[in-house]
Amino acid sequence: MAAQSYDQVRSLPIDEVIGEVIDLQLDQSGISLFEIREEHVFSRNGIARGHHIFSQANSLAIAVMNEEMALTAGAEIRFLRPVRLHEKCIAKANVDKSSAKKGMVRVNVHTYVGDELVFEGKFTIFRTGGKEA
Amino acid sequence: MAAQSYDQVRSLPIDEVIGEVIDLQLDQSGISLFEIREEHVFSRNGIARGHHIFSQANSLAIAVMNEEMALTAGAEIRFLRPVRLHEKCIAKANVDKSSAKKGMVRVNVHTYVGDELVFEGKFTIFRTGGKEA
Repeated sequence: MAAQSYDQVRSLPIDEVIGEVIDLQLDQSGISLFEIREEHVFSRNGIARGHHIFSQANSLAIAVMNEEMALTAGAEIRFLRPVRLHEKCIAKANVDKSSAKKGMVRVNVHTYVGDELVFEGKFTIFRTGGKEA
Repeated sequence: MAAQSYDQVRSLPIDEVIGEVIDLQLDQSGISLFEIREEHVFSRNGIARGHHIFSQANSLAIAVMNEEMALTAGAEIRFLRPVRLHEKCIAKANVDKSSAKKGMVRVNVHTYVGDELVFEGKFTIFRTGGKEA
């Protein structure tokens, strides 16, 4: 088993993260990769369905929490351009520690295809342990 | 085939709607039913993963459009209480016609378990036909 230069996911089993985690610094930042396959697109136009892009970002926002359990309380999201079959989405999450209060913390996720921003989301995550970031 | 008292989905194939459409008035309102099954919950705590609740609401917001194609431009969402295995989520979408501009329209979705509100989302939908609601 290769040594890993990044932290292990704590808040959910790794196979419940949508996309492949390629970097993780708990309570700080994380990066995941998700390739758009046939089952992720509208059959009619080959455009990725928004909820898959959302799922990658949301599960990364959860995965970055240094908690045994964490839940999404809310989000503001924008889809900036359609993502197509076979494109590779790189989601980058950053924990905004200054936002932490009452067991909630803001996690900002930006998703790119190449150098193009395709999605952004501001997630409010409830740390069910109640610890602040 | 039973007569239907509601409209047919136009913007995507019916089998691409997440949940079962139980009422639909194009460009006005829609209702869908989605039951939380094993594959929708976090294995650790039996709580439904947020992206499934989101997917039901988002696909209903798309389905209610009287267009051949529609895409989600953005959303503001809140998860109001955890949803658990076997609970039945009823999502109700309403098109806010007063919001229509530049090919975009706001669709408000409220999701209930029984009479409890568990999710709300304000979706901005891009009508790719460009027609206003």
